[in-house]
Amino acid sequence: MARIVLKFGGTSVGDIDRIRNVARMAKAELDRGNEVAVVVSAMTGVTNQLVGYVESIAPLYDPREYDVVVSTGEQVTIGLLALALQQIGARARSFTSWQLPVRTDEAYGKARILEIGTEAIVAAMREGVVAVVPGFQGVGGEGRVTTLGRGGSDTSAVALAAAIKADRCDIYTDVDGVYTTDPRITDKARKLPMVTYEEMLEMASLGSKVLQTRSVELAMNHRVRVQVLASFRKGPDGAISFDVPIGSDLPGTLVVDEDEIMAKGLEQSVVSGIAYAKDDVKITVAAVADRPGVAAALFGPLAAANVNVDMIVQNVSLDGKSTDITFTLPKSDLPRARAELDKAKASLGYRELTVDTNVAKISVIGVGMRSHAGVALKMFETLAAKGINIGVISTSEIKISVLIAADYTELAVRALHAAYGLDAD
Amino acid sequence: MARIVLKFGGTSVGDIDRIRNVARMAKAELDRGNEVAVVVSAMTGVTNQLVGYVESIAPLYDPREYDVVVSTGEQVTIGLLALALQQIGARARSFTSWQLPVRTDEAYGKARILEIGTEAIVAAMREGVVAVVPGFQGVGGEGRVTTLGRGGSDTSAVALAAAIKADRCDIYTDVDGVYTTDPRITDKARKLPMVTYEEMLEMASLGSKVLQTRSVELAMNHRVRVQVLASFRKGPDGAISFDVPIGSDLPGTLVVDEDEIMAKGLEQSVVSGIAYAKDDVKITVAAVADRPGVAAALFGPLAAANVNVDMIVQNVSLDGKSTDITFTLPKSDLPRARAELDKAKASLGYRELTVDTNVAKISVIGVGMRSHAGVALKMFETLAAKGINIGVISTSEIKISVLIAADYTELAVRALHAAYGLDAD
Repeated sequence: MARIVLKFGGTSVGDIDRIRNVARMAKAELDRGNEVAVVVSAMTGVTNQLVGYVESIAPLYDPREYDVVVSTGEQVTIGLLALALQQIGARARSFTSWQLPVRTDEAYGKARILEIGTEAIVAAMREGVVAVVPGFQGVGGEGRVTTLGRGGSDTSAVALAAAIKADRCDIYTDVDGVYTTDPRITDKARKLPMVTYEEMLEMASLGSKVLQTRSVELAMNHRVRVQVLASFRKGPDGAISFDVPIGSDLPGTLVVDEDEIMAKGLEQSVVSGIAYAKDDVKITVAAVADRPGVAAALFGPLAAANVNVDMIVQNVSLDGKSTDITFTLPKSDLPRARAELDKAKASLGYRELTVDTNVAKISVIGVGMRSHAGVALKMFETLAAKGINIGVISTSEIKISVLIAADYTELAVRALHAAYGLDAD
Repeated sequence: MARIVLKFGGTSVGDIDRIRNVARMAKAELDRGNEVAVVVSAMTGVTNQLVGYVESIAPLYDPREYDVVVSTGEQVTIGLLALALQQIGARARSFTSWQLPVRTDEAYGKARILEIGTEAIVAAMREGVVAVVPGFQGVGGEGRVTTLGRGGSDTSAVALAAAIKADRCDIYTDVDGVYTTDPRITDKARKLPMVTYEEMLEMASLGSKVLQTRSVELAMNHRVRVQVLASFRKGPDGAISFDVPIGSDLPGTLVVDEDEIMAKGLEQSVVSGIAYAKDDVKITVAAVADRPGVAAALFGPLAAANVNVDMIVQNVSLDGKSTDITFTLPKSDLPRARAELDKAKASLGYRELTVDTNVAKISVIGVGMRSHAGVALKMFETLAAKGINIGVISTSEIKISVLIAADYTELAVRALHAAYGLDAD
């Protein structure tokens, strides 16, 4: 017997039939003798409709009232799913976030979960009742409704799993697991049976849409075993069927501690995956005075304007007087960044500023590279062999990222996937 | 300065523009220096959609989960209305029913309000904040969501007005007040400036759809001054405009204590209104044994089966051995009533049972008839003069009801309206 949290996103509960399907999947876990809690999102489209209402009334809205409105979508789903479970003979009840309660801070619209009350829900689960809980929301210190921001339901599920000490948190999504790279780029991409928290975190922050970054952080901090799997099956003709699947019969990818992977004796490859992201821009500030404090003078105002600077490289100064600084930031931050840099032009005294929006960041990720030399070298050689020029490089303990021209993205990903031995047979 | 509760139904908040209109009306009350709370329903159609979801999943649903689902409609409206108020410069915030809280019993789906917490809402109103509250719902003793049943928002508004000791509760609806009779039957119907709780209660239970019966009872018990008025204006061409009205500029009908009407020195007519209802059936049980206990033997099983018997008449027994008993009940209760009477046939020993569905109940209502003789006589004479036969008669202190053939409804209403001096000039 295990205690399991299941999480289903908006597509998986998109209509009444799909809600019935989710009920069958949850009941199957119950029938295996497990204690089951289910975290659900709003039905597809509902949150967008509610956000549309809010924005048409008040373009600059009070986030406290926004949260009151948009949090209703999940409340509808929890009631309907509890009914669907009862209808097939399972005991079930819904818990709203103020009933548990799910306590958050007061950052309305993007709150963080502080604590989850577990007494009532654990008591219900122990009695064999499936507990149905809304994702994406909580109650702030003032007793008002909060929401966690888009995609917050993954975080809700992991936080609940941590609070009730669940043996596993199954995140049902529209992909059936975590792949060595995007299967749309190469049909040699393989599904990983297991991946470490650290690798998953890099993948999430490097553009993989499988799990929300915050939910992976939370899982890592509380050692919540997360399983990513699909809530529907794709037929050979590409047709999607929701009338399917019983969780563990269709294993996805387990996101766990490195020790667990080691303990299983699985062969740990040096590199687990190749990620790419095209949503950054590269900015070069040319001929800045090469003196102490210039980097602070450049990046201070950007940080103050909430611009997320990512990769940074400062070229060696040839004349000892001036230098070029190149860095990347999200495309969406570009207008704000440009405004700050224009303001700072006089004090920085740079000659010119060039912006390149046609770039991609390619990353090689793997906890194995900690103990292996030559991983970076292989990346540079592989790209060089394909004639791909590397702009900026940044590394962490378990990943190497390079910036290249966006046109070469697929070529680079395929070449690296093969070079690191990730290709499926 | 007054403390006012405003209540708007689903049609009045049916879309974003109408919600903006409601915000303007509430702000106008605030600008007059009043303390303002607003109780709102779900946007038109939303509750029906949610009920549809529930019923398609579970025809025999758990009412606790039903309440979780359908209560979300009002929560959307309170957030949107608070935002619309803020958008036009009014301070506003929403209070969910668990935030106040609105404590109810645990009759899920048809709960009764027990108590309303007023501390937070009164503090907000005193500071000039418009408090926006959902109608139709509350929290049961187990801390779970309850709803009051269809039309419960009127009751929510009156209960809130009673709890916060409001000077007035304005119920905005799709009619602009209480009329001496249905204006669709005669264009001589007049809007009443004032009506007593007792009269309003009779009108509500006799078929007037203006206010929910329970809300009138509650207003009477707590002496809440209720004003019925329209949230939109009808143009001369019959076109409806929601871009209008500031409450007290368009006085509706005030439902108040008799003393208040007397104190105003308003001429109190003997009869305030003529009501009619076509949703009853007449049942005659012929040739029942005329012995003590026969009425109890007849009506006991009906009461046990939750059949609402209304008017009853027992004919004088000519031979001293058998009698005919005639009574009315709602059409919707007929199948159950028939089943009970069939079962009881042997013990009652009646000869036959006739059902007439083609009947109407016509009622004359007025607190003035307490102190005036001859009111009933005038009714009988007026109907006789038009050749209308009276089936059953029932009276209370402030109303006389008669059952006639349904075809004569309009004729009877018009004749009585004229006879009691209610016709407009």
